[in-house]
Amino acid sequence: MARAALGPDVVGLELAATEFSYEERDVMLYALGIGAKELPFIFERGLKVIPTFAVIPAFPALMGLSAGVDINPVMILHGEQGFRLNKEIPTKGTLSTSGKVTGVYDKGKGALVAIESTTKDASGDVVFTNTSGVFVRGAGGFGGDRGPEAGNAAPDRAPDKSVEMTTLDIQAAIYRLSGDRNPLHIDPDFAKMAGYDRPILHGLCSFGHVGRAVLQAYCDNDTSKFVGFACRFSGVVYPGDTITTDMWDEGNGKILVQAKTQDGRVVIGNAAAEVK
Amino acid sequence: MARAALGPDVVGLELAATEFSYEERDVMLYALGIGAKELPFIFERGLKVIPTFAVIPAFPALMGLSAGVDINPVMILHGEQGFRLNKEIPTKGTLSTSGKVTGVYDKGKGALVAIESTTKDASGDVVFTNTSGVFVRGAGGFGGDRGPEAGNAAPDRAPDKSVEMTTLDIQAAIYRLSGDRNPLHIDPDFAKMAGYDRPILHGLCSFGHVGRAVLQAYCDNDTSKFVGFACRFSGVVYPGDTITTDMWDEGNGKILVQAKTQDGRVVIGNAAAEVK
Repeated sequence: MARAALGPDVVGLELAATEFSYEERDVMLYALGIGAKELPFIFERGLKVIPTFAVIPAFPALMGLSAGVDINPVMILHGEQGFRLNKEIPTKGTLSTSGKVTGVYDKGKGALVAIESTTKDASGDVVFTNTSGVFVRGAGGFGGDRGPEAGNAAPDRAPDKSVEMTTLDIQAAIYRLSGDRNPLHIDPDFAKMAGYDRPILHGLCSFGHVGRAVLQAYCDNDTSKFVGFACRFSGVVYPGDTITTDMWDEGNGKILVQAKTQDGRVVIGNAAAEVK
Repeated sequence: MARAALGPDVVGLELAATEFSYEERDVMLYALGIGAKELPFIFERGLKVIPTFAVIPAFPALMGLSAGVDINPVMILHGEQGFRLNKEIPTKGTLSTSGKVTGVYDKGKGALVAIESTTKDASGDVVFTNTSGVFVRGAGGFGGDRGPEAGNAAPDRAPDKSVEMTTLDIQAAIYRLSGDRNPLHIDPDFAKMAGYDRPILHGLCSFGHVGRAVLQAYCDNDTSKFVGFACRFSGVVYPGDTITTDMWDEGNGKILVQAKTQDGRVVIGNAAAEVK
């Protein structure tokens, strides 16, 4: 099948539907992959699924983008990610995800491809939705719309709460067993070819740490109180880095979020969580 | 089916055969569970199976002991373990294990049940054999043979090589995803009931660390040079502890081994490895 050229015409393209079957072991392994140590997340008795797990069943659909559109996978960066839960995520089962391209924006140096996906359980109920922004380096300049500006800037005041989490040197090695086996996150030679000193942490692994910070600070680790989270990835995190998540309570369940590494660089920004 | 009473008559009892199917992901997860960070053990490109993985496919057969013999699982301690490789362990596949009771010894305070198992691949080739000693607290005093004394005592001279490895606080949480879900290793309440201050590391997780020390010190991490390892478990290790493995080269590929925690307690002793 011929792949479509990357441009505004791609908007509306449906991605191949994917199925994701998982067991409690996968839920616990994901939790360990994003640094969780709390018993309800890593022990099968009374197991709860950390809400950011929502990105895992949706990930294969996202990967389907380069099957339908003429994109060099090596040029792809994960630019933005968000999800919203419709109900609590079950601890095991089979989920089906369908996705489509909702926007292609011309960012000059690259193109930003916006994708929305919907994930349903076996009964057909929507469990969660995801939005993703895939940045394709070198694919801009086609004269298209720049797209909406990122919102949810960090306020110009001290955070209401901050949570510090130190990642393990083997954090990416654990996280990648949840599905994203990109060698960029484990192979030093591959990382050097891609322009990094050493393998970098998965953006979605940092995303999981930041989600845990919100869950801890504003939901007492009660997964049923977590509704959604969306962010922009703005910097590289290395395994072993410490991620500090700053949070501002804007009222009505809206928490603005920004995360930095120990050197002060913002790695996740333009971010907001919704909690009950 | 009525279970046999624990005593000398149990010798010769065959344990239910078990099948174990695994993928590369399981091999990498096991490696992370025993603290490995070397790329060939945690990355699918050129993946090698750490030899101590041999205990994993054999473990379900071991658990079958209490199905055939009248033993209270709560009273069981893992006393001894050994394995010998017949060929390199494949990175994925289905292995079949059959086992039998080869001895029941009266240790006074308890009984030691010796088990031997053989694990074959789909072609019927023996991949490895295991020997296990299961100590059943409170089941001794039946007037039986005490059994052979443990050999392979640590020599009375400075070790030829020592390797120090620090375990993670989540070491048992990772390791248990390889199959041994005993709550003793993760649940603080269960650990207290069993008489420990907090959850303890799996004996076979320490065993894996010690095997890695031998593999590193005497095999240059070349798995094809590792033939076998056997030991007695003599002390408790807690997640977060540092395990120092002392090794003495006895010639002809025999390495005597003893491992201590940071407080000087011997946790694995009467141990020897065979290397090429």
